[in-house]
Amino acid sequence: MYTPPLARLIEQLQRLPGVGPKTAQRLALHILKRPENEIQALASALIEAKKKVGLCNVCFHFSADPICEICRNPNRDKQTICVVADSRDVIALEKTREYKGRYHVLGGVMSPMDGIGPEQLYIQPLVRRVTQDGVKEVILAISPTVEGETTTLYIGQLLKPFTKVTRIAFGLPMGGDLEYADEVTLARALEGRRELD
Amino acid sequence: MYTPPLARLIEQLQRLPGVGPKTAQRLALHILKRPENEIQALASALIEAKKKVGLCNVCFHFSADPICEICRNPNRDKQTICVVADSRDVIALEKTREYKGRYHVLGGVMSPMDGIGPEQLYIQPLVRRVTQDGVKEVILAISPTVEGETTTLYIGQLLKPFTKVTRIAFGLPMGGDLEYADEVTLARALEGRRELD
Repeated sequence: MYTPPLARLIEQLQRLPGVGPKTAQRLALHILKRPENEIQALASALIEAKKKVGLCNVCFHFSADPICEICRNPNRDKQTICVVADSRDVIALEKTREYKGRYHVLGGVMSPMDGIGPEQLYIQPLVRRVTQDGVKEVILAISPTVEGETTTLYIGQLLKPFTKVTRIAFGLPMGGDLEYADEVTLARALEGRRELD
Repeated sequence: MYTPPLARLIEQLQRLPGVGPKTAQRLALHILKRPENEIQALASALIEAKKKVGLCNVCFHFSADPICEICRNPNRDKQTICVVADSRDVIALEKTREYKGRYHVLGGVMSPMDGIGPEQLYIQPLVRRVTQDGVKEVILAISPTVEGETTTLYIGQLLKPFTKVTRIAFGLPMGGDLEYADEVTLARALEGRRELD
């Protein structure tokens, strides 16, 4: 049905997350209709990104340089570290423009079922940063799943002797409706209540 | 927020149809995590497909060879041509496994608003095929939009002197509910009624 190079392209596109046979076909046919230089640009962006982007030596966020832009920025507070599971969480937090400290990317969460223990994550380098750099606060910003909670508790215990450890608040999302919130979220929202300013 | 090679990749991915900023970011971060040979394979599939796949000289369907597999297949009835707007329609029809004739891809539909007249489509080569190859039936399988109808009527008039011209049936989709069908579809279904076998 498909001429071989087209079949191969569709097969390759299907490996991308969220791309099924229909989407892969649509993308492939679109690609065949675009000018060659546009496709060259896409192909080299793929290879370039893969070749050049590694992990920051300090915080393990994606970076094309040995040390990422955030870690190099002298205006970012060195004494506050926000710990996240994944690089995409750094991007999400940066979009808020609220946080002026630095980050530490764990590279995942602890999940004994999948053989991911503390050694598989960048936890040791975090401990080193905290003990060597005089960090004043570590903010744990890990999603509250079972694995996330385990990771949060583990790191919390580990770092408490050296610094203040906090975690982000859980509660009703902005614009959320109390009536439709699940009980766990509601319980967390109650528990996390604070006095009005 | 993004290291430059990552930003470029996200920008390139966003040019694909149906890929917005969120999807582009998700795809890009996925790509950074895959092994390099996998990304190389995707990049070369892109370039290969773009380089090797052109249009069949006979029917203008996508093909890596000068003449496509369908046109080369001696088991496909040369005297029946199914006319479609786009290569993706050939693929859709082939999936039915019902059609044993050949195809002709117009490369679009007539749309004066967009400056697409008969000269911008592969209509002349179709007329040549019909008059030279002793074609017995031309089946018009073009979507019933305003532009599609115009194209169907135009080609119908053009080919009627030379051969039998038919068009695919329009009516209730299989599994469709009469109650919820729109009036135009229902009118077409009534108009296209046939005697029970």
